[in-house]
Amino acid sequence: MPLNLRIPGPTPVPDEVLGELSRPMINHRGREYASILGECTEGLKRVFQTANDIIFYPSSGSGALESCIVNTLSPGDRVLGVSIGSFGKRWGEIARLFGADVTMLNFEWGQGADPGAVAEKLRAEGPFKAVLVTHNETSTGVTNDVKSLAEVIKPTGALLMVDSVSGMGAVELQTDNWQIDVVATGSQKALMLPPGLGLVSVSAQAWEAHKQAKMPRFYWDWTNCMNYQRRGENPYTPPVSLYYGLRKSLELIEQEGLQNIYRRHNEIGAYCRGAMQALGLKLFADPKYASSVVTAAYVPEGIGSKDIQKILEDKYDVVIAIGQEQLTDKIIRIGHLGWVHLEDVKACMACLRETLVELGHKVPAGATV
Amino acid sequence: MPLNLRIPGPTPVPDEVLGELSRPMINHRGREYASILGECTEGLKRVFQTANDIIFYPSSGSGALESCIVNTLSPGDRVLGVSIGSFGKRWGEIARLFGADVTMLNFEWGQGADPGAVAEKLRAEGPFKAVLVTHNETSTGVTNDVKSLAEVIKPTGALLMVDSVSGMGAVELQTDNWQIDVVATGSQKALMLPPGLGLVSVSAQAWEAHKQAKMPRFYWDWTNCMNYQRRGENPYTPPVSLYYGLRKSLELIEQEGLQNIYRRHNEIGAYCRGAMQALGLKLFADPKYASSVVTAAYVPEGIGSKDIQKILEDKYDVVIAIGQEQLTDKIIRIGHLGWVHLEDVKACMACLRETLVELGHKVPAGATV
Repeated sequence: MPLNLRIPGPTPVPDEVLGELSRPMINHRGREYASILGECTEGLKRVFQTANDIIFYPSSGSGALESCIVNTLSPGDRVLGVSIGSFGKRWGEIARLFGADVTMLNFEWGQGADPGAVAEKLRAEGPFKAVLVTHNETSTGVTNDVKSLAEVIKPTGALLMVDSVSGMGAVELQTDNWQIDVVATGSQKALMLPPGLGLVSVSAQAWEAHKQAKMPRFYWDWTNCMNYQRRGENPYTPPVSLYYGLRKSLELIEQEGLQNIYRRHNEIGAYCRGAMQALGLKLFADPKYASSVVTAAYVPEGIGSKDIQKILEDKYDVVIAIGQEQLTDKIIRIGHLGWVHLEDVKACMACLRETLVELGHKVPAGATV
Repeated sequence: MPLNLRIPGPTPVPDEVLGELSRPMINHRGREYASILGECTEGLKRVFQTANDIIFYPSSGSGALESCIVNTLSPGDRVLGVSIGSFGKRWGEIARLFGADVTMLNFEWGQGADPGAVAEKLRAEGPFKAVLVTHNETSTGVTNDVKSLAEVIKPTGALLMVDSVSGMGAVELQTDNWQIDVVATGSQKALMLPPGLGLVSVSAQAWEAHKQAKMPRFYWDWTNCMNYQRRGENPYTPPVSLYYGLRKSLELIEQEGLQNIYRRHNEIGAYCRGAMQALGLKLFADPKYASSVVTAAYVPEGIGSKDIQKILEDKYDVVIAIGQEQLTDKIIRIGHLGWVHLEDVKACMACLRETLVELGHKVPAGATV
């Protein structure tokens, strides 16, 4: 039985995409590569729903997030970090490490960012040069209402920068319509690729900010990247295999259609939440903000999340995630992101049920998953 | 006919390694990944000839070079950049961008760094906190005598940091015996992998410098990386497919034996230089410092390097590199690095001969390649 990889990334890669990864190397300064880079750029613009520039990095998503900070800000610039979990906290920390003057607005883990509270913070403590927002927070299984957040943030003139590492391509994000200046993502989530490619979209306002931004940078420098990309190259050697794969996965995304993909994730997310509740587990996220790509639930009293994880992997080849930081042993997290179908999550839930029973959890009578 | 990829990276990837790249994703925070990371670390230590820590990045080699700077230095620290070409120049530039006080010692392109001149610079303008040295400069086809350079640099107490992106695993570098504090490389050269993995070795003295180093960093932070690596993880999602490939390529390296690999490159390098001279081309590099992994030669009077490159690719599926910066149209560069055998370079030379004849070059009578 193949591994049922149910973590919020890396996500399973379709066979057609895996096959592309074994293609031989080519010259990264040649015509074939330029054509692949061009195709990938156009395809990504459709997924990002943007006409903005897309910048490619040989990096993880974290690298893409660092690039957003160092390309738009100078030391001392005031930044509002809107955090709803581990990744939101970390993005603010990156800005602080590079000398930004960071104000954090922390929401309780499991909650989304309340647009009213964000508006109030902006009014009371603004102006801020930039506001950092997480689209989908995998540490808690929460999706922010980015559209409503943008409606209160953009009128202040701040740059709106969105971490959509785990959201892009699975959860709707209208980069241009919602006026999002910078969006960062990575290859190993809804783009159905292995990790190793970081991606960032940059609006005209972000390019303006970039011109003034004094944080030191070389590897992440947008100007340098775009100077090369405009002629079909990158400043340094790109992860060529992932570009082969990306071209194919963008083709698959195009075939299914973005709206259908969002719908598939919504349906699977709803199913997963229902199934976990039927097993007698309490969901972690406020239902209002429940993520369609990762579901978190408290473990039953007296059962450790690591025990659940271990049995699922050893006995059923199902790999799930546990909590992060203070939640490590308190929640389990099921990823259903990218190349995922209802049957995969049903199989996972059936194994979870057996595991919970084995660990002494009383599954409610009549519960089916 | 398969592409004969004769650029100094990305280099051809053996079929066995390509096959590994198509393996399905696994949990990067699970036991299988930890075991792969452990195996790769041990294998790399043998290739680096070191007992030092090896740090892994999802990045190109340029990222690994940036990491060396920001992890060991503070703004204002005095750095000596020993440059013999485009990559040496760039490394000094990275240090300058992050606020180091950089003194450049530039040798004429085509020459290696003269240890006597370096010693004199250190005496006249030292002390320096760190000295940056390129092991193999692909822009010119020159390999530095790192052992002799180390002998004049280390007694000054400076950190010796070596860019071995194109040297490591093909050209001898005895990290520990020669007291090299920091060595950076990338996956897409002699390690016979696609691009996307940056690697750095860190000595005890470099760790000491790291503790004082104040340049801002998050993604590249060595402490953060090693805190995770010690427990079999990375701070952020690693490029899993490349680790599969690396495990295999390290196995291939082990089978052939490092000394045999160095010898193979030396033989191929000598053959390539001889063949190009036989074709009536003038070698670019001083023979004393000629690289065994990339050979550069002047193009004949009246023939452009781009014309040679284009015919080779269009007609023969042979891909070579041209010059960089001021040498763009003055030299051609043939890579013979990593998974390369004498037959590959012979085939390349035969096609080069035809191409030169087609372009009107008079190949010397009786020349065989």
